[in-house]
Order: sequence, then structure tokens, then C-alpha cells
Amino acid sequence: MIQKIQINDTRFPLGKGAGSDAIHRDPIYSYAVTQLIDDSGITGTGFAFTLGEGNDMVCRAAQFYAEQLKGRDIEELMSDFGAVFNRLSNEQQFRWLGPHKGVIHLALASVTNACYDLWAKKRGVPLWKLLTDLSPEAIINTLDLSYLEDELSRDQALQLFKDNYPGKETRKGIISAGYPGYDTSIGWFNYSDEKVRENSRRAVAEGFTAMKLKVGSPDPERDIRRSHIVREEAGNDIKVMLDANQQWSLPQALKICKALQSMRPYWIEEPTHPDDILAHKTLADAIAPTKLALGEHVPNRIIFKNYLQTGSAGFIQVDAVRVGGVSEFITVSLLCRKYNIPVVPHVGDMGQLHQHLVLFNHISMGHEALFLEHIPHLQKHFVHPAKIESGVYKTPMEPGSSCDLKPLK
Amino acid sequence: MIQKIQINDTRFPLGKGAGSDAIHRDPIYSYAVTQLIDDSGITGTGFAFTLGEGNDMVCRAAQFYAEQLKGRDIEELMSDFGAVFNRLSNEQQFRWLGPHKGVIHLALASVTNACYDLWAKKRGVPLWKLLTDLSPEAIINTLDLSYLEDELSRDQALQLFKDNYPGKETRKGIISAGYPGYDTSIGWFNYSDEKVRENSRRAVAEGFTAMKLKVGSPDPERDIRRSHIVREEAGNDIKVMLDANQQWSLPQALKICKALQSMRPYWIEEPTHPDDILAHKTLADAIAPTKLALGEHVPNRIIFKNYLQTGSAGFIQVDAVRVGGVSEFITVSLLCRKYNIPVVPHVGDMGQLHQHLVLFNHISMGHEALFLEHIPHLQKHFVHPAKIESGVYKTPMEPGSSCDLKPLK
Repeated sequence: MIQKIQINDTRFPLGKGAGSDAIHRDPIYSYAVTQLIDDSGITGTGFAFTLGEGNDMVCRAAQFYAEQLKGRDIEELMSDFGAVFNRLSNEQQFRWLGPHKGVIHLALASVTNACYDLWAKKRGVPLWKLLTDLSPEAIINTLDLSYLEDELSRDQALQLFKDNYPGKETRKGIISAGYPGYDTSIGWFNYSDEKVRENSRRAVAEGFTAMKLKVGSPDPERDIRRSHIVREEAGNDIKVMLDANQQWSLPQALKICKALQSMRPYWIEEPTHPDDILAHKTLADAIAPTKLALGEHVPNRIIFKNYLQTGSAGFIQVDAVRVGGVSEFITVSLLCRKYNIPVVPHVGDMGQLHQHLVLFNHISMGHEALFLEHIPHLQKHFVHPAKIESGVYKTPMEPGSSCDLKPLK
Repeated sequence: MIQKIQINDTRFPLGKGAGSDAIHRDPIYSYAVTQLIDDSGITGTGFAFTLGEGNDMVCRAAQFYAEQLKGRDIEELMSDFGAVFNRLSNEQQFRWLGPHKGVIHLALASVTNACYDLWAKKRGVPLWKLLTDLSPEAIINTLDLSYLEDELSRDQALQLFKDNYPGKETRKGIISAGYPGYDTSIGWFNYSDEKVRENSRRAVAEGFTAMKLKVGSPDPERDIRRSHIVREEAGNDIKVMLDANQQWSLPQALKICKALQSMRPYWIEEPTHPDDILAHKTLADAIAPTKLALGEHVPNRIIFKNYLQTGSAGFIQVDAVRVGGVSEFITVSLLCRKYNIPVVPHVGDMGQLHQHLVLFNHISMGHEALFLEHIPHLQKHFVHPAKIESGVYKTPMEPGSSCDLKPLK
């Protein structure tokens, strides 16, 4: 039974230039952490990710949601978590502040993720194992499919799992092989050209087969120059992604994306405002076969549904510490599976939680095991930091979702 | 010069059943109020509207934005407010909590509205007069048109004002005639059938030519029955609107909207989730010529742009205490003018602020003077409550935007 709630506002200043992009020049990576303390002494930990300022508001809202789970048994809660999620996310006064977006939805992510962590720890297994062992019905019971009735009914969701049952045992090979990673930290926006070159070379040497550069400069020539630096160091076989962090207007994006095609980007990420579904559609059509990646700032399943319906995303970067947690992450992954669009999460969690979720997506849902973003900056703060060796995530074996943070000194 | 900031968390419990709809069963109408106190002793007041819980977070975020305006001269600030708005709304850490939506964007509305109020009070004129007397260039300088480059460049925005200059003097007739209102309080969700009938009769007697009923019941038969009660009392000439407050899935909406067409609704409002642009498009096409109204929960100009581009809204209900305040309200109204879609604001402000804005939209932009929602529940709390006589808003003549609240006892 959940007996005690603890919410922590945890902020980690980064090193000079790290984490910077075209819009976020000086972020402080921060977590609004929810801890659900069970009467058996087990603590479920979940969090949402922010860039510092306002992290306290997410904590305040998480407290509101978490209080409502006091006295509940975690197994009983998770047996019908879809209904719990629906009720919490539609709380009639709080809902006005969204609905299903912004501070309150980040807070719901924090609480939801703590529930999944507690659930896995109570069962004594890593989250990926808990999820891959669940029956399709038990998984669907943890999801809120409301407002998706036109695209993903309960029966259709069940069928997706059943259709992908063949091959499940084979796909479990990924557990020992490890899930491939890609390196986001080679090319932060504020890094000099020389540092970008040096980092690209290092990432190749470390075994990464994919890496990402921040673009979206007021001077497009800088973007083009730097992207070719990375391509030079990466050679022809390594995938290079470009990330504009919403910096372009649609007319700008149309022009610059075409200029960037010469370095053969594997994707171009967040070219413009994350709410602008139709601009992404126009751009995607104009630069095909180059593909767009998006989702880091998309708050809920309904907007993802619209992106999928318009066919404007080649890769979906849903983030379980941005949408309403693991539950909505799985819902969005199901939608993507229906549309055959790869899920390549943004890792606000530094990959700690997502290393579990991409294993589940691959094993149970049949998603391609493409690669998972890797950002190393907060590793030392986690009790069980993700292990990347030769560019590959080693499968976590500790119980839970790997989200416990060390006590702050 | 703005010398002092005061933020107030102000909540007003309502009478039994009042304010209730299909989703919000028991709201507490609340304002996150920003006061900017000028060194001349004048106080600019603005607010965002919430339903109670979490209003404190909006206050916390408003404090963050307002602090950044300390020491600024209001005339100088408003001479380039578009740039100020752009900078505040893209503050690099806070932005992560949106962007441009949820708690932080509500907070920006509160601060923005206080700026416009202070500006009008300093000039000693009602806000509608300040706005209608501004040159097109001066108005455009208060707007942030970023992410609209594909639809509304600065030149195009200027041209819209110039195109509508002829007829401006004639349209000023509305100032003495008054702007028509419509009555939302006849048919709250929790009201009995008898009370709905009685209220409809009273509204007709009071001179309203339009009124609205809440629908979205789990039992569609209740919606249909009650809608016909209102139509009976209203007769054929009075416009009756139906408001589902997002309660339906798309398949439900398709079915129930068709069943409701028999009572000839003037519009059907918020049929489903406010983020679901494509569902609204599908529904709008299916029930034409019946029109949809939406916007109460749409947080920013970019999503409104998408709604207009898909042609899914017959009426746009942008609310200046939901989007980033007066500035973004005007931006959205310009987009609507381009698409020839009427703006009929949702009045989270109870019409206090919007009575100024619809006059401006009509006089300077050439928008049709359709009608403005009227919700009487908080009248007694305002220093200058909106005056409705024979169903018509009497034009406010006091300096400012009519948003000052009486001190709480």
C-alpha cells in the first residue's frame, strides 16, 4: 500500500556549453521527482524533466496527483491504470490548466513513472521484463485510449500485440546484444567547430554508429559548415542527424533544409514550432526523401495522432518524461506501430527509463531496434547509471526503471 | 515607470450548479491577477482565468514574467511589445514547460493584459478607444507574428488593417448602439430540464437574441431533449448554440451532432479534444452546413493557424485570458479576418476585457459584430462590471480594460 509521498525538486547545473541548442542557451537539467513509498519499504521513483526555472511548479502539481494515490495497492492500481490515468488527467479543475499539456501533464508523467517503477520493484524485476512478460490485455489495461477511438480502439490495440507475437522470442536476442545508442553530445550549439570535429572523431572511435549535431543558427552558413565537418569525420556509413530545436519559420526551414540535404542527414529534427502540424506536413512533402523527426515537445497522444495522420514525421521522438509517463508513451508507440513509424525517444531521462521502454517496444510490439539517444551529462547522479559500451546500451538488470537518484550532498 | 508588482490568487466559489458543464462539474472561477504599479500611482490590472486548483501556479509563473518588466516605462514597452512578448514567451528555461501553452502561457496572459490596462489608463482612455485610435503600424508593433510567416507576414497584417480602413467611421456606430450579447447561463449542465426552460424564457424576455445550452451527456437522449426545450422557448428566430465541452470521441460526435441538427443549432461547440485538429476537420465536413465553434482551450496562434488552414472552425472562440493576452488575441483575430471566420471570444474574463476587444475587432479590422458571450456570475466582484441592457453590452467608458476587481473582504 502506498503510504507516503515524497516530491523532490532536483536541479543539476551543467558544464560550460553542454546541453545548449538554438533555443536553450543555458539550461539547468532538472527533475521533478515523485517518490511513492510503499508500506513494505519499497520506494517507487519517477520524474519529469525540465530545464530548471519552474521545476518547482511541476513538483507542486505532482504532489496534487500523488496525494490521490495514497492508500492504494500498487498491483491493484496497475491492474486498471488506464482508468486511473484518465481520471487524474481529467481532474475537473486542474484540467483547465492544460488539458493534457504543460506543467500539469509533466507532473502526471512524474507520478505515472513512479507507479511503474514501484510496480516493477515490487515484482523484483527490471521494468522491461515486467512489460515484456505482461499479457496484451494487462498492458492495454494500463493505457488510456480516449480520444483515439477513430484510430486505435481497444480491440485494434490488442490485435497489434497479437500480430507481433510471432518473432517475440527471436527479438529477445536484443537483451544480450544490447540496444544501440547514438551520441547527442558531440555537437551542442555553443561548441566551437573544432570541438565538434574532435567530439565526432571520439564518438566514431567509441563505436557509435549515429550522432547528432545542433543546427538552427541565425547564420545558416554556420549550420551547413558544421554539418559537413561532422559528415567528414563520420564518413559515409555513420548516420548523422541534425536538430534545429524549432528555430526556423516554415519559409526558412524550406530553404535551409534543402541546403542541408547535400550532407545526407539521416533526419532533420524539430525544424519549426512543435504545434505546427501543417507546417511539418508541407516541409516533409517538400524535402522527401529526407525525413523529419519530432516529438520532444509534443505533450500528448492526440497531437501525435494528428502528426501520424498527416504523415509528416519519419521518426517519432515521444519522451516518457514529457507525455503523461510510461502509460502514454506506450499508447503513442502503439499508434506509431500502426503507422509503421519508428519510435526514437527524446531522452529527457538521459536514457535511464527509455532503455527499458525501447526494449519493450522492440520485443513485444515489433518496433525496429533502431537506436536510442545517449546523453551522458547526469550519469554520476543515478544509482544505476545506464551503461554504454561500444556505442550500445547494456540491458539493465536491477529491479525497477533505473530512475533512482543518489541523495544530494 | 513600473515600480511595483503585485500578484493575487483570487478565487470565487459559485452558486449550486452554476458554471457546470460535461467535464467541469464543480468549478471555482478564479483569477491569477497581475498588478503593475506605476510610479505615477496608476495600477495596471490583468488576469488569466482558471477553474480553481492550480491558480497558485499561474500566479507563481506570472510573478516570474512580471519581475522582468520592473523599471520599464509603459509607453516605451508598448511601442515594441511584440518583441517583449516574443522574448518573454521564449525564455529559454521556462519555455520547456510549454512552449506557449499551459500554466506558463496563462501567466503570460495575465502579465500582458496588465500591460495593456496600464497603457490605456496612462492615456486616460478605455482600451477599445486606445486600440481603435492606434495606427496599423503601432498595433502591429505590439504583436509577435513569429511562426506565422507562412500565413501572416508583417506586410500582410498591415494590409489587412489598410483594406478595412474604409467603413471604419461607419462601424463606430457600434459604440453608441452597443455590442450584442448572448446568454450562456441558461443551460448549465447540472441544471434541471425545468430550470433550463425557465431560464430560456427569461433570456428571451430580457432581449437576448442568442443563447447556449451545455450538452455532452453520457445519455445523448438527454442532450437532444434539452436542446429541443430551448428551441421551443426560443422560437425560430433566436440563435441557439450547443456546447459539448470536449466530451465526445470523434465517432460519438459524428453520430450525436447529426441527431442534434434537427433543432438547428447555430453552432456546436468543442465537440471533442481541443488538440485534435483533424478530428474537427472530419466532423466539420460531415455535418456541414452546421458549423463548429472552438478555441476556448486553444492556447496559441500556431494551433489557431492550423485550425484555420484546415477550415474546420466556423467560429473562433479565442480567449484573451487563455492565449498570451490581448496581443496574441489580436494576432489570432487578424488570422481569422484573413480567413473570414468570425471571432466570438470565450469569456473567461466574464466579458470585462473582451467587450473592448470585440469593439476593436469590428471597428478597426472589419470583423462582423456578431455577439459576445455573457456570463453574469462574477459581476459584483468588478469595480466596473459590464453592463448588459436588453441583451446588449453598453460600451464601457472608464479608462483601462475594465478588469479591476474590488478588494476582497
